[in-house]
Formats: sequence, structure tokens, C-alpha cells
Amino acid sequence: MDDGGRRGSGDRRLMRVLGGETLSPPPVWLMRQAGRFLPEYRALRAQAPDFLAFCYDPEMASEATLQPIRRFGFDAAIIFSDILVVPDALGQRVRFVEGEGPRLDPVDLDRLDALDGARQREHLAPVYEALRRTRAALPDETTLLGFAGAPWTLATYMVGSEGADKADARRLAFEKPEAFDHLIARLVDAVADHLVAQLEAGADAVQIFDSWAGVLDAAAFERVVTAPTRAIVAKVRAAKPEARIIGFPRGGGGKLAAYAAATGVDAVGLDWAVPLGRARELQKKVVVQGNLDPMRLVAGGAALDDGIDAILGALAEGPFVFNLGHGVTPETPIANVERLVRRLREP
Amino acid sequence: MDDGGRRGSGDRRLMRVLGGETLSPPPVWLMRQAGRFLPEYRALRAQAPDFLAFCYDPEMASEATLQPIRRFGFDAAIIFSDILVVPDALGQRVRFVEGEGPRLDPVDLDRLDALDGARQREHLAPVYEALRRTRAALPDETTLLGFAGAPWTLATYMVGSEGADKADARRLAFEKPEAFDHLIARLVDAVADHLVAQLEAGADAVQIFDSWAGVLDAAAFERVVTAPTRAIVAKVRAAKPEARIIGFPRGGGGKLAAYAAATGVDAVGLDWAVPLGRARELQKKVVVQGNLDPMRLVAGGAALDDGIDAILGALAEGPFVFNLGHGVTPETPIANVERLVRRLREP
Repeated sequence: MDDGGRRGSGDRRLMRVLGGETLSPPPVWLMRQAGRFLPEYRALRAQAPDFLAFCYDPEMASEATLQPIRRFGFDAAIIFSDILVVPDALGQRVRFVEGEGPRLDPVDLDRLDALDGARQREHLAPVYEALRRTRAALPDETTLLGFAGAPWTLATYMVGSEGADKADARRLAFEKPEAFDHLIARLVDAVADHLVAQLEAGADAVQIFDSWAGVLDAAAFERVVTAPTRAIVAKVRAAKPEARIIGFPRGGGGKLAAYAAATGVDAVGLDWAVPLGRARELQKKVVVQGNLDPMRLVAGGAALDDGIDAILGALAEGPFVFNLGHGVTPETPIANVERLVRRLREP
Repeated sequence: MDDGGRRGSGDRRLMRVLGGETLSPPPVWLMRQAGRFLPEYRALRAQAPDFLAFCYDPEMASEATLQPIRRFGFDAAIIFSDILVVPDALGQRVRFVEGEGPRLDPVDLDRLDALDGARQREHLAPVYEALRRTRAALPDETTLLGFAGAPWTLATYMVGSEGADKADARRLAFEKPEAFDHLIARLVDAVADHLVAQLEAGADAVQIFDSWAGVLDAAAFERVVTAPTRAIVAKVRAAKPEARIIGFPRGGGGKLAAYAAATGVDAVGLDWAVPLGRARELQKKVVVQGNLDPMRLVAGGAALDDGIDAILGALAEGPFVFNLGHGVTPETPIANVERLVRRLREP
């Protein structure tokens, strides 16, 4: 075993559920649990010159990863990083403008050879170092997650598509199908390698975030979400056969069952728009993770309790990981997160 | 019959399908078919001082409604107007800022009596006059549609919630449930009255646009989308028993079957994210309308043809209205719209 005499990662509660077990209470972690709602995060972040420098500092990234574990004792830590480190590693310069989000130098679909994967592992070495440090500092029972953005979602940023419907990226996918598919194929390789490297550096499992999967019709979804994810899963499994993989095609709705079957992911993350009856159907085929509306966590009180209880009522009797339907928002009161964890764990 | 010796509206092709018939080819109209992609629309719009003045000018609104019928011969005309005329009529001032979209003076949830429905019909009289003029000028076989925004979607604008996930509106719905439900109830009355008045003014059928329904979890969807729509449908049917009503809860996904059953709408509009297999299941219960990705119409060529053919293959053998999954975008080439209509209608 990699961890020299300690328990194997397969004993960790989240890993057991990803392997198909049903546990009560279910394991819990929250997307963006290391983030601006925590004062200790804001204090740490203020020490870095910019967001990418923060991501690429192994000490700071590891510390940010550990903060919510210390405070809330979640069952998993997810490495503090960003999905855009992959295009950044391929040579497409990324800047984070305060209050505006990421800005990328636009990629030229007709000149994709400008993207160079040869130095990807070197460029992303600080991420892997952060994983090693985090694993060494984490409680033994805590699962460590790596992650990457999925090709479609990365492509929306790389082609500079703004707006929540990603109209420009959809248009390019339809108007320049060969060039667009070439970009997706390049990203399959880059994402798979980044996930494998994270598993080698100590991640127990990885999550693939396809945050903009919801803007696609079924044919386009199969083409730029499901097929590339299937290819990534195959590549990761070839290198790390024991790897556990969570797919999160946000907004996947009625396409999730086909996505799960075709890609072979171990678990599917659900956004909060997925009705719980549908989630329960899906759970007969694959482990599910989700799906509280983050605004219920902001609101607290009955809105929070009712949301938690409805999810547990529908999903707790099968293999299930409690999570939000998307990331924790900065205005979330810490007391509400404590209330959530207490409600899940106390009998 | 209201139309004095001409055919009844029940003979119009779209109305026949809304009544449950299967027609080949299916009737077709496009959301936002009167809009900026048409040069004749842009020329007309340039004559009005601002967007709301344009909506409230019966002659211009009627002319804009007729333009796409003359050019493409769609089976339905939808009155040129805006969903925000309802809050405007209630006294919440609306301005359209060029390039930025609508701005509303924020409503105070604790002082909803500031919203006054007493003069709503008077305020909206130009919309009803535009419908009368349009009906008189339309080809007899063309269905005339009225419409309104649904309460939840109107509320997102009225509380000033920006961003595509409508986080502020969701938060208010959870944090101030009584006040929020009071706002929704006020809007149920206002929307129902606006739809009834449109039917009295010559609309054959009406569509209820719930453009932001997709950001809600199932419990919230039932509360602010399904239940209010059911109340609106009941009010409209009480006043106009023969009314045909299309519900369009965009992003409704796995909640659409329950929405259709509970609300009693005659047809459900589908956004393009709904997979066609799911759409076909739904069609066993209710007439469906949709759902081409507007970006396929922008792209043209194989992306357009494949999209049309997939939809027809799945849905043309049941009661079906061809439409986009959302509105026509300004960059849509007119030749692609002509190609769409030709492909649907030529054998």
C-alpha cells in the first residue's frame, strides 16, 4: 500500500460508497467547501498575489484544502485548485480578474498546435505536490479527491464563450465540427493525464466537472460530453485500474442514465434541478452524489432542514454521497454548514 | 363564432394540434420569430423611441407580429410584446437599457400593496388593440398566440435577481417564504387576467413563458412554478373554457410530466436540452412543442438538417408543434429559417 501501513484508501467511508456500499449516515463533502465563505480561507488568500499563484503554491493550496476538514470534519477533502490550470498548462494564458472571473487569451481553432502538452506535468507539478502534502496531513479516514474540468466545459472557456448558455461555443461546435472535435480530443488527453497524475500523487478518487453540460441538446451532449468522458475514464483506468471516478455533468437531466452507462464512471453528481424520484431511479444503476440547492444552505432554517430531509428520504437507502447540487456560495453562514453536518450525522 | 362567418379558430392547423390531432407536416412557429434577425423588424424598431413604447404602439406591435408571417408563412403569429408589461402595468417601472436588458425599480417584498392591479387592463389596452388589429390582418389559417411570463419568472425580474442561476430570487423564496408566496399570488391574478384579456381580444391560444424555471429544485418548482401555473390555467379556463394553453417551463427537465399533469396545460414547450426519447414519453400524455437548439439554426447546413430530422423522427408521429427550444437569436441567417420551413413542409 502507498500509505505505508495505514489503512488502505478502500477503507475510507467515501471510497466504500464509491465502491457501491450503502453507509448510514452517508459520507458528506461540499463542492467549493474550501472557499470564500470561510474567514480562514479569505485570510490565506489575501497572502497570494493572484488566484493562479495561490493555486500553484503547494503550501497554500494544501492549507486551503485542509481548512474545511478541520472545521467541519467532512468525509472528503478536494484539492484546492481550478479547472483552468489545464488550459494554462497547455500554454493558453489564464488570468483571473477580481470580480469578473477568468479571462483566457482566445484559442485559434485553426491553429491548435499552439497548445503544447509536452510540459503539462512540469507546469502542474505544484498541484501534485499540494496533493502529497495534503494526504500526509489529512486524517487517515478522510478521502482525498483530485479533479479536472471536462473537455466541453474547458472548451467553452478556451474559445471565450460568455453567458450562461455558452452560445458561442455551441455555435462553433456546429459550424466548425472538425476543428472543435480536435480541440476536444486534445483536452481528453490533457485531462486524463492530469487525473492520472493526481491519483499518483495521492488522490484516492477524482471528480470530472462538466459545469456547462446543461446547455447541449442530446446529440451534442453525446458528442462533446459523454464520448470524451468515456475516453477519459478508459485512459485513467488503463493507468490506475483501482481509480474511482465521479462524473458531474451539471444540467445533464434526462441524459444522466445514458451518460453513466456509457462512460463507466463510478458515481454521478447531481445538480439540484434533478428531481429526487429521478435520482432514485438513477441510483439503481450507479452511485449518486448530491444535490441540495446551495441557496437552501444560505437560507438555513426550515428551507435547509426540509431540503436535507427530502434528499435523505429519497436516497439514503442506497449508495449515496451527500453534497450540494453545485458549489458553496460566499454568503453561506458557517452556522448553517454546521447545522447540515449535525443533521446528517446525529441520529 | 367571433370571426363572423370565417372558419372557426378550431380549424387552424396549430389549434387542431393543440386539441390533440397529429398533423403532417407538423405546424411550425418560432419563439422570437418577430425580432432582430429580420431587417424589416430593425427598420420598424428604429422608429420607436424605446422598446416599451414599441410594445405599447398597437400599429407597430401588430406590424412586427405580421412580418415573419409574410416572410415565412408560419402556422402561428405570436403577438409582439414583452413579459415585463405585467409588472409595468402593476406600477413597477420597467426600463430597457440598450445592450443591457431590462431594469426594474426593485419591488419591496414587505410592501406589496404598492403593486396595484386595478388599472392593469387600461395600461395594457394597447396590447389588446394590437391583437385585434393583427387578427384582422392575419391569413385566416394562421393561429394568433398571446402570451405572458409566468409568476416565478416575473418575480425573478421584479426582485432584481441577476445572473442565470437567479440566486437572489431563490434565496428570497427560501428566506422570506410568506412574502415571496404573496408576490407569486399577486402575479397569478395579474397573469391570468392578462391572458384572458388577450383571448378576448382575438388570441386563439396563449403561451405561458417560465424562462427561469430551470434553476429550481423539485420542491421549489412545485411551489412557485407548477402550483401557480395550475391556478392560472384554472382561472383562464373559468373565463374562456375553450382556451388552449401552452406551458413553457424552460429547463423543467424531469419535472415536465408532473407539471403537465398537475397544471392541465394543453401543450408543453420543450427546451433543447430535453432528450428526444424523454420528449416522446411525454408526448403520450400531452401535446409537445419544440425543441431545436437555436444555434443549429444559426449554423445551418448539416447541424440544422440533422437537428430537424432527429426531432421529426422522434415526435412527428404524435401531436407535435415544431419550434425552437428557445428564441431565435439576432445572428440567425434568414436563409436558414427558409431552409427549416422548406425541410419541414416539402415531402
